[in-house]
Amino acid sequence: MKFEFSNPTRLIFGAGSLSRLGEVVSRMGTRALVVTGGGSVKRNGTFGRAVASLAAAGVSVVECSGIEPNPRITSVARGAQIARDEKCDIVIALGGGSTMDASKVIAAAVYYDGDPWDMIYHGQEKLHVPTRALPVVTVPTLAATGSEMNCGAVISNAETSVKSFIQNECLSPYAAVVDPELTLSVPQDQTAYGVCDLITHVTEGYFNGVDGTPIQDRFAEGVIQTAMEWGPKAVSDGGDLEARAQVQWASVVALNGWVQVGTNFAAPVHMIEHTLSAHHDITHGAGLAVVNPAWMRFAARVRPERFAQFARRMFGRPAGQDDLSCALEGIDLFEQFLRSIGCPTRLAEMNIGDDLLARYAQDTLHIAGDGNGRLPGRPLMSEADIVEVLRSALK
Amino acid sequence: MKFEFSNPTRLIFGAGSLSRLGEVVSRMGTRALVVTGGGSVKRNGTFGRAVASLAAAGVSVVECSGIEPNPRITSVARGAQIARDEKCDIVIALGGGSTMDASKVIAAAVYYDGDPWDMIYHGQEKLHVPTRALPVVTVPTLAATGSEMNCGAVISNAETSVKSFIQNECLSPYAAVVDPELTLSVPQDQTAYGVCDLITHVTEGYFNGVDGTPIQDRFAEGVIQTAMEWGPKAVSDGGDLEARAQVQWASVVALNGWVQVGTNFAAPVHMIEHTLSAHHDITHGAGLAVVNPAWMRFAARVRPERFAQFARRMFGRPAGQDDLSCALEGIDLFEQFLRSIGCPTRLAEMNIGDDLLARYAQDTLHIAGDGNGRLPGRPLMSEADIVEVLRSALK
Repeated sequence: MKFEFSNPTRLIFGAGSLSRLGEVVSRMGTRALVVTGGGSVKRNGTFGRAVASLAAAGVSVVECSGIEPNPRITSVARGAQIARDEKCDIVIALGGGSTMDASKVIAAAVYYDGDPWDMIYHGQEKLHVPTRALPVVTVPTLAATGSEMNCGAVISNAETSVKSFIQNECLSPYAAVVDPELTLSVPQDQTAYGVCDLITHVTEGYFNGVDGTPIQDRFAEGVIQTAMEWGPKAVSDGGDLEARAQVQWASVVALNGWVQVGTNFAAPVHMIEHTLSAHHDITHGAGLAVVNPAWMRFAARVRPERFAQFARRMFGRPAGQDDLSCALEGIDLFEQFLRSIGCPTRLAEMNIGDDLLARYAQDTLHIAGDGNGRLPGRPLMSEADIVEVLRSALK
Repeated sequence: MKFEFSNPTRLIFGAGSLSRLGEVVSRMGTRALVVTGGGSVKRNGTFGRAVASLAAAGVSVVECSGIEPNPRITSVARGAQIARDEKCDIVIALGGGSTMDASKVIAAAVYYDGDPWDMIYHGQEKLHVPTRALPVVTVPTLAATGSEMNCGAVISNAETSVKSFIQNECLSPYAAVVDPELTLSVPQDQTAYGVCDLITHVTEGYFNGVDGTPIQDRFAEGVIQTAMEWGPKAVSDGGDLEARAQVQWASVVALNGWVQVGTNFAAPVHMIEHTLSAHHDITHGAGLAVVNPAWMRFAARVRPERFAQFARRMFGRPAGQDDLSCALEGIDLFEQFLRSIGCPTRLAEMNIGDDLLARYAQDTLHIAGDGNGRLPGRPLMSEADIVEVLRSALK
């Protein structure tokens, strides 16, 4: 274990914390670009309450609405232009992962005259690495991506069907105002996809990190156990605030670095899914529910002992069983859990067939490959491996 | 769960990271006050390597040596005076918990003209709350207190036999350079006391926090399990770098806030132990090994279900057993673990008798009481309760 870690984001967590937004924002800015998605925050009153809190603290508001579910670089450019024109000094993300991700990149794009797509890693010759950004305050309305308290963002380019990421310390939000009440109105399917998303953040580190990180193993297992305990409650009764709070807290720690620190992990399941959602505009968490169990079965053949540990600790599988049988039983149980909360686990359920499997694999390797035609992770994956995994998830 | 959390300290972890000290310090300062303890860092070469790294980065050094194992406020005043006289712009703590705690308070005392004891909470009428401090870089040479990555400090007043604390965000270290190699020469007994100290940080939150924090429960259990797995290896073979690294990582996360966040916990065992070490100058971790199991047996009678959960998850006790029996068996096993690594578990082993039990209880309540003669925790403790716990730990 050898690593450097920093997460300066101030976290304000708890039911009702939206009322503190103005106070928090006013420490860093007076004119806020408020970034939103498709309009649900206006319909359910969240936007109005946020603006009232800001006004009471003397913060004026400029809007940038209409961020897409898979946020597009064109929206980032539009938001940055508004922020510049209106002389905003802070960006507030009021929405789900896509809104938060777009907001972070908008905050950096304000200081960059070129095409913001230059900042998103997509295999280009010359990456533009930002060194500063407007302060960002995230207000998640969905428990899923963990974007509220980390310095990463995933952005799509609709022209080229590429979905890829940026990760840079200057994108760390100044603060995250995490109010589980804002998630009470999230529909059942999106709630389930969020649970799958947060669990997948944890499994990526657990299965693709370095050896010898026993505390991180335990933290990962703790987050998954909690998500599997409370996730179904949030799915079956969206109005259960306690369940909403537990799931949202799980989603925060699933990707704020506490669980994966020191694991130096790769995220092959995310990389493959990004290609699927770039082509088909599916919900990220739903795509993960399809790819993750299929990937697990592939990877378990190479490292059965690791997947057997997962099966034993998560599902109480007996110690005597041979590792591979134990591993595969654990993966079956995990897939059953995803199905039980309403996630798809086969491509056919999302109307994705087998005609582009090679293309998905090639795109994945183009964006996230190691330069030698392999996708990082444990094990490294070739194009044929990726096709095999996707093929196993067809129906 | 309702809380605000921020931990801005940058963590640089891993064997060999001492060589990065100069690079890290030079981002924030050019003239460093290097604070050390009894001289072991000079004898074993750590000081020389630190100064060489600093010199290579253009950072000059002023020394403040001789911080006591229970650091005294007089040493804090002395360090602050040196920092002022020598115009230091950064403080480096090179030592154990006492050196790190003294360094944090020195960094704040530089900006305060009064007696630095005014900043340490000890029941005084007017507490001086610091608002700024020199940047601090911690370099722990012992895995124990977790002081390297939090904003707390514990300071003693030899004149009044009072040991108490300060906690303030401006005391957060800028960076922690955590190099497990520096702990290779820690003697067996101090290694064991460090393991006990870190575990006790976790048990305080686990047993004295609010209900309904399932992720924090799992994180706490993970740290304790890891400390119980790797601690004995570090104790029995001090040269085992892997064990040293695991124990040190456990000690960092045991008190950097990740485990206790949102639990709003009290620390009755620490408060009682502080009084003991103020009177008898014993090692904090050794005192905790005596007080913690005794306190657990007291508290388990009030909340057997909580202690039964601990016994079941930590020691695999069967689910069918009644809670109180299960709880008490778990506490016995925990105490056996402490004994197995060489910790004392009775006051007599530290030559502390029963003549001052009431005084310890009164002092504890004077410093840490709730104003109504009760010590915060679950359950609240009266003077008689504290005496009862200490009496049960006599022999």
